[in-house]
Amino acid sequence: MPLEQALEHLLEAAARAPISACEVVALEHADGRVLAADLLAGCDLPPWPNSAMDGYALRLEGWNGEPLAVSQRIFAGTAPAPLRAGTCARIFTGAPMPEGADCVEMQENTEVLEDGQVRFTAPLKPGQNVRPQGQETRAGDTVLVAGTRLGPVELGLAASLGHAELSVRRKPRVAVLSTGDELAEPGQPLAPGQIYNSNRRVLISWLQRLGCEVLDAGILPDDLALTRARLQGCQAADLILSTGGVSVGEADYLGQALREGGELGLWKLAIKPGKPLTFGHYAGVPVLGLPGNPASTLVTFALLARPYLLRRLGCAEVQPLRFKVRAGFAWPVAGNRREFLRARLEGERAVIYPNQSSGVLRSAAWAQGLVEVPEGTTLAEGDGVYFIPLSEVLG
Amino acid sequence: MPLEQALEHLLEAAARAPISACEVVALEHADGRVLAADLLAGCDLPPWPNSAMDGYALRLEGWNGEPLAVSQRIFAGTAPAPLRAGTCARIFTGAPMPEGADCVEMQENTEVLEDGQVRFTAPLKPGQNVRPQGQETRAGDTVLVAGTRLGPVELGLAASLGHAELSVRRKPRVAVLSTGDELAEPGQPLAPGQIYNSNRRVLISWLQRLGCEVLDAGILPDDLALTRARLQGCQAADLILSTGGVSVGEADYLGQALREGGELGLWKLAIKPGKPLTFGHYAGVPVLGLPGNPASTLVTFALLARPYLLRRLGCAEVQPLRFKVRAGFAWPVAGNRREFLRARLEGERAVIYPNQSSGVLRSAAWAQGLVEVPEGTTLAEGDGVYFIPLSEVLG
Repeated sequence: MPLEQALEHLLEAAARAPISACEVVALEHADGRVLAADLLAGCDLPPWPNSAMDGYALRLEGWNGEPLAVSQRIFAGTAPAPLRAGTCARIFTGAPMPEGADCVEMQENTEVLEDGQVRFTAPLKPGQNVRPQGQETRAGDTVLVAGTRLGPVELGLAASLGHAELSVRRKPRVAVLSTGDELAEPGQPLAPGQIYNSNRRVLISWLQRLGCEVLDAGILPDDLALTRARLQGCQAADLILSTGGVSVGEADYLGQALREGGELGLWKLAIKPGKPLTFGHYAGVPVLGLPGNPASTLVTFALLARPYLLRRLGCAEVQPLRFKVRAGFAWPVAGNRREFLRARLEGERAVIYPNQSSGVLRSAAWAQGLVEVPEGTTLAEGDGVYFIPLSEVLG
Repeated sequence: MPLEQALEHLLEAAARAPISACEVVALEHADGRVLAADLLAGCDLPPWPNSAMDGYALRLEGWNGEPLAVSQRIFAGTAPAPLRAGTCARIFTGAPMPEGADCVEMQENTEVLEDGQVRFTAPLKPGQNVRPQGQETRAGDTVLVAGTRLGPVELGLAASLGHAELSVRRKPRVAVLSTGDELAEPGQPLAPGQIYNSNRRVLISWLQRLGCEVLDAGILPDDLALTRARLQGCQAADLILSTGGVSVGEADYLGQALREGGELGLWKLAIKPGKPLTFGHYAGVPVLGLPGNPASTLVTFALLARPYLLRRLGCAEVQPLRFKVRAGFAWPVAGNRREFLRARLEGERAVIYPNQSSGVLRSAAWAQGLVEVPEGTTLAEGDGVYFIPLSEVLG
């Protein structure tokens, strides 16, 4: 199955199962959350006409061009008095215009006379150097649409418009499940035949970055009844995310339980790493099964699970940016699956980790991004390839 | 001052004031932290020779090619018995090799006879389809160097090698200070002349993403004695980060306090937005003063404050990736400062927000990245420009 087709299936399924409950949270707790409703400006920005310069505010109407006395000084943050007729006001950048003034002259075009009066040395126009109220944003404008993921910039924007709290989608509850008796937790000694479970740590940290609440469902024992019980225990989850263990092989208790108690789709993705993917449900709770070797888990989470989760939260933009760069390597043998190679930029060329074997997390830690080599394609050094920065998918 | 020169100054100052205290934290608390010491592999990976295929393990030495009886079945996660002489073992991908076996034949090249014995139909070589112990990583190998920022991938790598906790640099303590009586906090009504403080929210969220402990030092009153007292109150900080208010103008109490009680450098950066930058110290605590308008704060934090903080933690890589893309806009008038335009990708072209006025946070919320237009340069549509994804600087 081509990647695009798998993604389309998953995004359609996500749109049919939105996580639509909302909660109101303070700005300081909203980083990484998804906005539940359009955010309207709570006030005009700027809230009042203000000066774009350090200079003098005056009223052109009825003025004959003579020097003017300075009747007040207006700093940012102060509330000016109305402008006294026949005077000007010293004013600083960002300070509110006094009532009655209709323009600002920058100080460079003025001269302070011996008696303290100010002479204006250049022609003046009504409204010059004045930022009108609401120039950037009008109260009631939609400034962020529902489905926006909130980060420092969006939170600052909400703050600038007076919002101290926001309505966000509730956190998705994701049950993380590893399969396989061979897995041991770090810090424990390895029994014979055991290896350390790395995917659990990758996925829990990653899901937390995506604003999920993680239910650690542990390691699934190689036993059918226990597998069923464990899946039953995940009924409060919005998604069961498993790694490893669903296959057509022997000892596949997770697959067997899903076939009995729900639905099991097995997809052979035309990507490398990351061929086998499971999507189905158990008693109505969606189950997404990623391949178990760490590089495959990484690629399928980045390209499929992450967009799926974000779409369930109503995000419109769920795909990472990718950039055309030059290959700093040759790819002499065309593959029959699209490859995602762990890569770094050297200058403007992408170089790849020497060992792209799917078991190697070291390559992913070394990498700054993934280079996409399409199926059926060979590359010479200098050919164009797409580069997906890891920063685009890790947050 | 060119951007490169300002960055060099800041990185040198950062290297002279490292935050070098360490603490040991569990993996689940290490996301976003900086590794304090090289991480050595705690075990070989794989920890024992194992099968790369589903098939049969056998011993070539002394074997005459006749069919072999199956003496055990070895799943991943089990501890095999030594291979009985004159037999083979059914074995699955990832399962440990039994002692005495020296190769694996994939099941496709075998035939199970009526009596259950297995016939091997292709030539065999010692070591085939066996992944040797330590093939990926040897116990004692350096797998992550000190100064690495830890994310999901690095934490997974540490887990795969058996580490349950890591030694990391302590969190930098950053005091965030806004200047200006005109600032009100969101949720409060605006007094005349006041605007809402947005930079505080941007910076606090951003610093937390960078693994900092934020001390909210509030809004600095426009008063010299109170300013001195507030700076004294930040003596436990590793950095005082202020926005707005340091200038050569009137009512500059922060600048005055720094000149008296420390050192004040005022840089005019040749970038737009973001011209005025302050770097100095108060009683030995470094002070970095960013310009106060929100787009300037964003650009100077991304390009200068972030690298400075990461370098103080010992990070080698502190600069964002940037990519050459085509301009989807024309830039007919060359500027005298380098411009960083809020931009999005449309196809493979960068398009810019129509209003690049430095006061507009909306443009930054709309943007996917910053496009760099060098000083003294005009652009036609289709010309090459650098694009810095916001994801590269926001985490």
